[in-house]
Amino acid sequence: MSSRDGYSWTQDQGLKAGVPCIGAIQPPTNLNPTASQIFDVVVVGAGYCGLTAARDASLSGSIPNSFHSTPLTFATTGLKVLLLEGRDRIGGRSWSSNIGGYPFEMGGTWVYWGQPNVWREITRYQMQDDLELSYDFSKGINQFILASSEGEQKFTHEEEDAIMESGLCKLINVDGEFGKKIMPFPHTANFTPEALAYDRISVADRIAEIKDSLTPTERLTVEAFVLLCSGGTLETTSFLEFLHWWALSEYSYDGCIKYLVKYKFRGGQSTFAVRFFREALATGNLTYAFNSPVASVDDGQDGVTVTTRDGRKFTATRMISAMPLNVLNCVQFNPPLPTGKKTAADIGHVNQCIKVHAEVRNTELRSYTGISYPHNGLYYALGDGTTPAGNAHIVSFGGQHNHFNPEEDMQATLSALQGLVPMDVERVVFHNWSKDEFAKGAWFFPAPNLLSSHLGDMRAQQGNIFFASSDWALGWRSFIDGAIEEGTRAAVMVCDSISKSSPKPKLA
Amino acid sequence: MSSRDGYSWTQDQGLKAGVPCIGAIQPPTNLNPTASQIFDVVVVGAGYCGLTAARDASLSGSIPNSFHSTPLTFATTGLKVLLLEGRDRIGGRSWSSNIGGYPFEMGGTWVYWGQPNVWREITRYQMQDDLELSYDFSKGINQFILASSEGEQKFTHEEEDAIMESGLCKLINVDGEFGKKIMPFPHTANFTPEALAYDRISVADRIAEIKDSLTPTERLTVEAFVLLCSGGTLETTSFLEFLHWWALSEYSYDGCIKYLVKYKFRGGQSTFAVRFFREALATGNLTYAFNSPVASVDDGQDGVTVTTRDGRKFTATRMISAMPLNVLNCVQFNPPLPTGKKTAADIGHVNQCIKVHAEVRNTELRSYTGISYPHNGLYYALGDGTTPAGNAHIVSFGGQHNHFNPEEDMQATLSALQGLVPMDVERVVFHNWSKDEFAKGAWFFPAPNLLSSHLGDMRAQQGNIFFASSDWALGWRSFIDGAIEEGTRAAVMVCDSISKSSPKPKLA
Repeated sequence: MSSRDGYSWTQDQGLKAGVPCIGAIQPPTNLNPTASQIFDVVVVGAGYCGLTAARDASLSGSIPNSFHSTPLTFATTGLKVLLLEGRDRIGGRSWSSNIGGYPFEMGGTWVYWGQPNVWREITRYQMQDDLELSYDFSKGINQFILASSEGEQKFTHEEEDAIMESGLCKLINVDGEFGKKIMPFPHTANFTPEALAYDRISVADRIAEIKDSLTPTERLTVEAFVLLCSGGTLETTSFLEFLHWWALSEYSYDGCIKYLVKYKFRGGQSTFAVRFFREALATGNLTYAFNSPVASVDDGQDGVTVTTRDGRKFTATRMISAMPLNVLNCVQFNPPLPTGKKTAADIGHVNQCIKVHAEVRNTELRSYTGISYPHNGLYYALGDGTTPAGNAHIVSFGGQHNHFNPEEDMQATLSALQGLVPMDVERVVFHNWSKDEFAKGAWFFPAPNLLSSHLGDMRAQQGNIFFASSDWALGWRSFIDGAIEEGTRAAVMVCDSISKSSPKPKLA
Repeated sequence: MSSRDGYSWTQDQGLKAGVPCIGAIQPPTNLNPTASQIFDVVVVGAGYCGLTAARDASLSGSIPNSFHSTPLTFATTGLKVLLLEGRDRIGGRSWSSNIGGYPFEMGGTWVYWGQPNVWREITRYQMQDDLELSYDFSKGINQFILASSEGEQKFTHEEEDAIMESGLCKLINVDGEFGKKIMPFPHTANFTPEALAYDRISVADRIAEIKDSLTPTERLTVEAFVLLCSGGTLETTSFLEFLHWWALSEYSYDGCIKYLVKYKFRGGQSTFAVRFFREALATGNLTYAFNSPVASVDDGQDGVTVTTRDGRKFTATRMISAMPLNVLNCVQFNPPLPTGKKTAADIGHVNQCIKVHAEVRNTELRSYTGISYPHNGLYYALGDGTTPAGNAHIVSFGGQHNHFNPEEDMQATLSALQGLVPMDVERVVFHNWSKDEFAKGAWFFPAPNLLSSHLGDMRAQQGNIFFASSDWALGWRSFIDGAIEEGTRAAVMVCDSISKSSPKPKLA
């Protein structure tokens, strides 16, 4: 199976669009073309959020309005679900391509047992022993190489950690307690006023405040780390949201490493995503159609009618929109989206992350980490594995800062890789999230003021439409964990609303 | 609503058995006495594990044998569930009693967003803003008071943290990396051989190895902390399992505090447990009977027949045993439990925790923490809240070390409280878990060799019976989180096995 998405490049074969993916579903639909069906819920988007929502809704339909009150009302079990997806694959912004027996992670990669929603699913699917470490500091060039406009410096990884921790603690320490005081509960929509105030400034603003306390090396590494997180520029990175990531990561650099870049699936993300899809399918309640981008949504008294770009119409009692913020405005909603939600979608998020994998013959780079900033297009990289061919796998990151489109000029892409550390490249693999019409960017990261003005708007239901996305999760917003959090929420809300509107009492 | 469980004492009223509890369910059964019913699954035990299993099974019945393979087979949705419980209330070893407008936690109390299963549920029920801090070091006697046989020492909480961290790190540091090297993945049944070796020794053995490196104060505090965790004696506390708690708690004392004793429900645990029960009930698939202790279980080709002590018989296709390890042998299983499981139940776990709440007129004790060890029956305590009457709430702990039964001699209980710090006691509240016939102890804690010999045995299915309990969870074993982990696993396994035995294809 392979997907249209993604690119691979080798010297011999040049650039090729489309890569193998076990998340590319065959057959692409199980719709019965002759039957006219009304569904309980149509889910638009088959990323982790949509997959979770579709699975939970197809498994269950019996969470009534009243599960914390009496008298109880009952609904039928098992909603009839239609899952529509524009792509030819599941996973949305998280998917893996297995090339030469090795999984390359095209988007969301890392998971951790402190992330509640994703770990609950990993345990539920008994995949807790399927993780491995990304970095391995036991072999080869065991160094952190910092390439800046001033030249190159080499550090041990212990020195790297000390520099990063020192710099980040200076950046974060607005309250004398490294954020713990102003953001004691990171999993909430109700930030303290002291924390919310930091949504008015960018990380650039905050760095301007503390710049005299940062060493030049600290400043370079901190800036590159922040951009690794946001995929924007320092000016477009909300300081509040960076504080939020920090709070989620146990208020420490060590925590950031554990939660953000340490553990991944040995077989790749798509080995996880297919579990959700197959479980939903196995209920018998799931109808699905890939290659079915949605053009418009009409919500009325009789339910929601979704029209695909090729003119097919589907009707359901409820809809779960599991599309990212940056593409919400590509769908025509009737009635139009409420002003706040529309405004949020107009503003969008700022993450234009470029993630480029390089399989390199320099096996000694397995233990390398590096920053190349501020001049280079790829500013962060680390050794992420050893391929079956014995090559080192380097994963590198760029973003809005010095943004480029890797497929448009492979020589420039290869130069950006060489700008990190000299490497003998055998293969390059990537997905251009900026040019992806179903994402228009990578994981959510907000510019200043978006969250404080519009988090509630983004989360709000409208009529029969429930909006779910990791982009507006409360906890691990932007992460796979947040996608599952939101898919869970949407399924509960839909089941609840269906139960409310048509209670069907049953004898116990 | 009130439960038979628990005790309260005041000077005026003396000792009274039974306390208010919103988890005491009325009416105590919804069984139809005239109908003869065969259930899909009977769940025995209505703690968090049984509640989760009953909820998930009643919500869904469609996880087939094949959700990660093709061809797919389908099951019906929504299993018919019978939930049997010996007590008059839900929650098992975690429940709260609201007295005078204030929740006293009789058992399992603390939760944290790094605990995946419990936090997934808290988010799903939108209770993420319902937590509060246990300790509050901002008022009154802001001290750590260490009472030992040698007299009393007073420390600041910063000094307390430094002593505990230093001592615990010496205890834990078997690998030069504070446990990270030998136990890199705490959520697993597959510990490394290096870690497993530590199941052969007790914490007493380990302390004997390092005793020369511990200061007298470190040794007292570390021993009391370990006993707080295990509820056993140092000799009966597996060093492996203590390492496991440490690894789960991010390999740090600060992590232990966050995960183990920091955040609790503002309204009490039972406000959380009732959500599971009511959601399950609302499916229309849940039949339940409290006050129905099980005497025997007969498993045969036609399913499982469960007989209560009062002679009622119930038949189901499958059974989920959600009873704790220490009471498994109180039920007669036919055929008998497999040898390994029987042996594990014979051995049992060692936690005989005594948890005693004191409402005290010394409001200044709100910020107190203390240890009284090794001479006292209650060896650990902290200020846990302020009651509506303005009194301080002190929660204190004892265990197998100097074990006593608080209800048997209230003067001795009050003396043990005074042995911590002088207090003017208005009210005492507790549950004697050791004398509780449905628990025979508090949360699971193993003596040496139990886990390495019998973890697999405890987790194993037998015939149509699935054994689920926090006592043999993989991650947060012994915690509410582990109970939900296991309830989730059991429901998946039961649905899977029913689907395997009777595939019922449906058209999509």
